[in-house]
Amino acid sequence: MTLATGLAARDDTRLPVRLERSRRAVATGAGLATDDVDAWLAGRRRAHRFTVERVPLGELSGWSSEPGSGNLVHRSGRFFSVEGLDVAIDGRAWQQPIIVQPEVGILGLLAKEFDGVLHFLMQAKMEPGNPGLLQLSPTVQATRSNYTGVHRGAEVTYLEYFTRPERGRVIADVLQSEHGSWFLRKSNRNMIIETFDEVPPHEDFCWLTLGQIGSLLHRDNVVNMDARSVLACAPMAPAEAGAVRSDTDVLSWFTNERARHDVRVRRIPLAEVTDWVRTKDHIRHADHRYFRVGGVSVIAGNREVTSWMQPLLEPVGVGLCAFLVRRIGGVVHLLVHARAEGGLLDTVELGPTVQCTLQNHAHLPERERPPFLDLVRRAGADRIRYTALHSEEGGRFHHAVSRYLLVTATEAEAAAEPPAGFAWVTPGQLNSLARHGHYLNVQARTLLAVVGLAEGLQ
Amino acid sequence: MTLATGLAARDDTRLPVRLERSRRAVATGAGLATDDVDAWLAGRRRAHRFTVERVPLGELSGWSSEPGSGNLVHRSGRFFSVEGLDVAIDGRAWQQPIIVQPEVGILGLLAKEFDGVLHFLMQAKMEPGNPGLLQLSPTVQATRSNYTGVHRGAEVTYLEYFTRPERGRVIADVLQSEHGSWFLRKSNRNMIIETFDEVPPHEDFCWLTLGQIGSLLHRDNVVNMDARSVLACAPMAPAEAGAVRSDTDVLSWFTNERARHDVRVRRIPLAEVTDWVRTKDHIRHADHRYFRVGGVSVIAGNREVTSWMQPLLEPVGVGLCAFLVRRIGGVVHLLVHARAEGGLLDTVELGPTVQCTLQNHAHLPERERPPFLDLVRRAGADRIRYTALHSEEGGRFHHAVSRYLLVTATEAEAAAEPPAGFAWVTPGQLNSLARHGHYLNVQARTLLAVVGLAEGLQ
Repeated sequence: MTLATGLAARDDTRLPVRLERSRRAVATGAGLATDDVDAWLAGRRRAHRFTVERVPLGELSGWSSEPGSGNLVHRSGRFFSVEGLDVAIDGRAWQQPIIVQPEVGILGLLAKEFDGVLHFLMQAKMEPGNPGLLQLSPTVQATRSNYTGVHRGAEVTYLEYFTRPERGRVIADVLQSEHGSWFLRKSNRNMIIETFDEVPPHEDFCWLTLGQIGSLLHRDNVVNMDARSVLACAPMAPAEAGAVRSDTDVLSWFTNERARHDVRVRRIPLAEVTDWVRTKDHIRHADHRYFRVGGVSVIAGNREVTSWMQPLLEPVGVGLCAFLVRRIGGVVHLLVHARAEGGLLDTVELGPTVQCTLQNHAHLPERERPPFLDLVRRAGADRIRYTALHSEEGGRFHHAVSRYLLVTATEAEAAAEPPAGFAWVTPGQLNSLARHGHYLNVQARTLLAVVGLAEGLQ
Repeated sequence: MTLATGLAARDDTRLPVRLERSRRAVATGAGLATDDVDAWLAGRRRAHRFTVERVPLGELSGWSSEPGSGNLVHRSGRFFSVEGLDVAIDGRAWQQPIIVQPEVGILGLLAKEFDGVLHFLMQAKMEPGNPGLLQLSPTVQATRSNYTGVHRGAEVTYLEYFTRPERGRVIADVLQSEHGSWFLRKSNRNMIIETFDEVPPHEDFCWLTLGQIGSLLHRDNVVNMDARSVLACAPMAPAEAGAVRSDTDVLSWFTNERARHDVRVRRIPLAEVTDWVRTKDHIRHADHRYFRVGGVSVIAGNREVTSWMQPLLEPVGVGLCAFLVRRIGGVVHLLVHARAEGGLLDTVELGPTVQCTLQNHAHLPERERPPFLDLVRRAGADRIRYTALHSEEGGRFHHAVSRYLLVTATEAEAAAEPPAGFAWVTPGQLNSLARHGHYLNVQARTLLAVVGLAEGLQ
């Protein structure tokens, strides 16, 4: 990796080869066999007390409505708040509650070679909003409050590998957005750091290969959102020589999408948000659409803090996130959609072909329903290359489950020249965009991780 | 450029070679000889009536203080406004006026091959804030107001090449930031489009090679800011094999810089901005620091509108923007500084090693003065690889002139391991970052264009 002059090579050409080797190790790794992961997770679940109870919003200890604004805030002024947002996208206007959490957290995945194969240190982590509570997460999930001690809890295990990445080798390190419909301009630092040190073992952590994680991605609600997001940033996808559009043309198309949308966003007091109501239990939409904000009380044995209460955002219904897939000119392409969302930092990011929750569209006329939705819903088993349920971040969202799909399409169904706002791009092109922030939204990153890792999809 | 399958190659490997050929054509091109550009510019200046007179702010026709907020606004609600900004960067807090112009403009440069050499269609364009009024600009500088007709003026010449880039070939197309101290989250679309059509000539435009433009960059106030910014986005710099940091490590360092700064920004009414005063003539700082906002009346013969009045932001003093340059391991490196500015979209962007206005620091104690400032100021002629005065956008800024410098440094003066917030990167690394938005600030882009184009610097 080092040139004769003492300089570093600009590109690590061995890395894709090493990642591919790890991806091919599907059944076993240096730690657990893939078939044994379930039993291990069940064991970790039993080992820790972790109970979650619903609590009315008004009874959340430490949380209250700020006088005047009505914003839902913590007495410390930290963690996050629920405030109001006034959104106008290309003339379509609405107001909504939104989570405000300006600090940048770390989602850190530690990598290490065992027997010549890269392994990744996954954590069995409980979050109150997770279906089944426990999922596989990155090595470290830390908000700034976590690692600056606002929680007054225990230290975050393995954090030091990510606060001093120069101790190892950086595989990926990029600020990526979170949900633009639920978070105001939230981004987290997605990091993969390879270490050459001996790493002390910990009972809640295990080393898995990319192939093992890819195998687990075929299962419902096992690999958490943070892990999926981080893994999407690993340069996994092949560097295809050709594509429908050159890389420069993809960037140009994206620039035009970003420039042509008029997104105007204004923070407003939660108390002023129209069409939403505050009950004793929840903040919810007058027509029960979109999501509601409720409270939980958590008792945990393996967390920095052993008990706490907090609000969680609970979406209405199960989401649907799907890429249409076509082999064009012999090369796999995915149909991305440049989506404007009120909480994104900069107008649009690339999302899956279809990203919606059916319930939220039921009241709309046919012509206002998302393009390609019916195609995805009607797809038979022969068209579905991948399907699984995955949930979003369980520290903020309660049972926020979406069905993630890869669906093959034909030229008649999805032409090589797609409608405005859509473009066919290769996994390699998406992977190179994922080195930079604010190109791929969090749902697209889940599916990019699936394309890169899940068995049988390469 | 087309693969056998009908796909496009992801990368245009011939482009850097073609750009380099254009860069080597320094003395002559298909249009004017470089030595004749001055006479041509003088002719264009004579051909058009263009007068600019200072006008007190209160007498600007069409502009007024909005009741309540005191914001300086146009009666149409369009163009731009001057509002207030409350800024806190890492605990250091201040308030200031700021220009708010949410729409994305086009800075478009048209390229075409003549006799096998790429030429670029430069416009002799008058702007009221330009020193000398007339400078070389890109083919098109258009705000959305320009091309959607809010100005009620004539059509923008050659605009169609940029609103329908698929007519030609995209060389660069990226949203880049403008001045983070003067504009609130302003970005423009920087485009270079190669055309294969016959382009009708126009007396205010001429085709120049990159080498010719590079030669003109050695002259004061000839190549305008928009042209410099767009040219920085052309993939000009060499793809060096090695660097002090790998590309991934540069991204990781940048991600850390973006994450570690706490930048909090809040729009406030201009009337509430502390330490600034409104006089009959200006909005200015109580101690005459930073900048003032005044008015001008313009009469023009070759513009879409033949007369108008507008505010201009007038900085105090001449700015200083300098990269320290070192050859490390045989490869040229520039010392970038991750600068937090209140008006940037996302915390920090990479600026020159030194970017300041001396007058604004005169009242500060020595230890608060910018790092490396004294090194740059004391540099003798043998250290100065490049120096010229360039002005910022003359449509918004009045005589906003900075001295731009490239200064060679030694290990003793600027170590290979620089202080926090600084990093040594190669021109090729900066060039690859310039394909994406919000990495390089506008001052760094001017110097990157100089490094890429100016004679004798490769």
